[in-house]
Amino acid sequence: MTYCLAIKIDAGLVFVSDSRTNAGPDQVSTYSKMRSWGAAGDRQIVMLSAGNLATTQAVVTRIQRDIDEQVEGNLFSLRYMSEVAEYLGKLNVKQQTKHVDQGMTAGFNAEATFIVGGQIAGQPPNLYMVYPQGNYINVSDTSPFMQIGEAKYGKPILDRIIHHDTSIDDAVRCALVSMDSTIRSNVTVGPPIEIVTYLTDSLVMGKYWKLEADDPYLLDLKSAWDEKLRQAFCELPRLE
Amino acid sequence: MTYCLAIKIDAGLVFVSDSRTNAGPDQVSTYSKMRSWGAAGDRQIVMLSAGNLATTQAVVTRIQRDIDEQVEGNLFSLRYMSEVAEYLGKLNVKQQTKHVDQGMTAGFNAEATFIVGGQIAGQPPNLYMVYPQGNYINVSDTSPFMQIGEAKYGKPILDRIIHHDTSIDDAVRCALVSMDSTIRSNVTVGPPIEIVTYLTDSLVMGKYWKLEADDPYLLDLKSAWDEKLRQAFCELPRLE
Repeated sequence: MTYCLAIKIDAGLVFVSDSRTNAGPDQVSTYSKMRSWGAAGDRQIVMLSAGNLATTQAVVTRIQRDIDEQVEGNLFSLRYMSEVAEYLGKLNVKQQTKHVDQGMTAGFNAEATFIVGGQIAGQPPNLYMVYPQGNYINVSDTSPFMQIGEAKYGKPILDRIIHHDTSIDDAVRCALVSMDSTIRSNVTVGPPIEIVTYLTDSLVMGKYWKLEADDPYLLDLKSAWDEKLRQAFCELPRLE
Repeated sequence: MTYCLAIKIDAGLVFVSDSRTNAGPDQVSTYSKMRSWGAAGDRQIVMLSAGNLATTQAVVTRIQRDIDEQVEGNLFSLRYMSEVAEYLGKLNVKQQTKHVDQGMTAGFNAEATFIVGGQIAGQPPNLYMVYPQGNYINVSDTSPFMQIGEAKYGKPILDRIIHHDTSIDDAVRCALVSMDSTIRSNVTVGPPIEIVTYLTDSLVMGKYWKLEADDPYLLDLKSAWDEKLRQAFCELPRLE
């Protein structure tokens, strides 16, 4: 499985992804699920993926080839983030149906889901979820985050903390707490964890981190959160 | 949906259930998902249910009828908690297949899952999960809790807090925090929340609470946990 999430706040965008893929318990690998494309001053786009690894790789390859060959409607010529979502949806469906059409579909699921976000000059930043069927939705104003993969374990903390006026720093920390809870409760989600931030109207990519399992900050965060949660728990009122 | 959980600690057992059932968004009802049977000094048994409401009601009715008619192998004559799980599994399969056999199975799912726990005199307390197929598993020593229904949202806090030496009070509070996180993140889980405790070797039922949505303790717990979580979050180290 996978756990990826993206947050859209007034200050910008935050993208976080795990790197564990598995096709059965004895076929566990590490692949990045985060891709980004950008031209300073013009656009910055980040994509997170969940689902069939062959499909997501084929989609990424096709995006890059369309850019390299300057095909009409490539990632650098589209004018709106919604067009980017539309384009990604079409590539997604195309890659999935390519293999399904060959009739080799027994127990086979080529589906992939994407989160794509960023900003194109002259437009506000935006965030979309692109479904396996190629359709897509915009992020909500009231719950300004999107999750793909193992989304449930890490949702409660996002529900509590993330609002449109949350700071980038807090959004990053909250996303990492959400990731930590998920990794703790589900073995199919695992490090390295990639994080990238984008500041509204900057049109350059923000900070990028790749945290391995033994990263000192990640270990600090885990133990601090664990300790503080226990302490918070101990101070709760008792049911009499 | 449903969220029920049970905890087995050295000090005893804790059972917690929500009460929302839904067969579509315009058919939402409130039903208790907790049943208990007992005879002071001899045995105390608590059952939590998730899944098809008709199946769970039919199973409960049959358990009660077997007791009333003093059928051999009823809940008051079985000698081990594992026999109780076996008996419950058989009733569960029987009730499900009754309707499936009639061929009216299009889009119909009669499955139900149960958690059953308690103590029979001369035996240690125990906790089982009974699957729709009638088979069952015993609670683990290292993760001494079981969940049915919408289990993922509320699992991280249980993973962190619950150990075999947790106190009954802490287990109750932790179960309620887990329930609160689930209710917050998923609208198909809702109050009233029922809680019952059982103290090891007491052979009488412990405390019972039924908390409505506006119960002062529940509101207190929710706001205290929300505030303490935010505060704990604010104190976390920042990623530089």
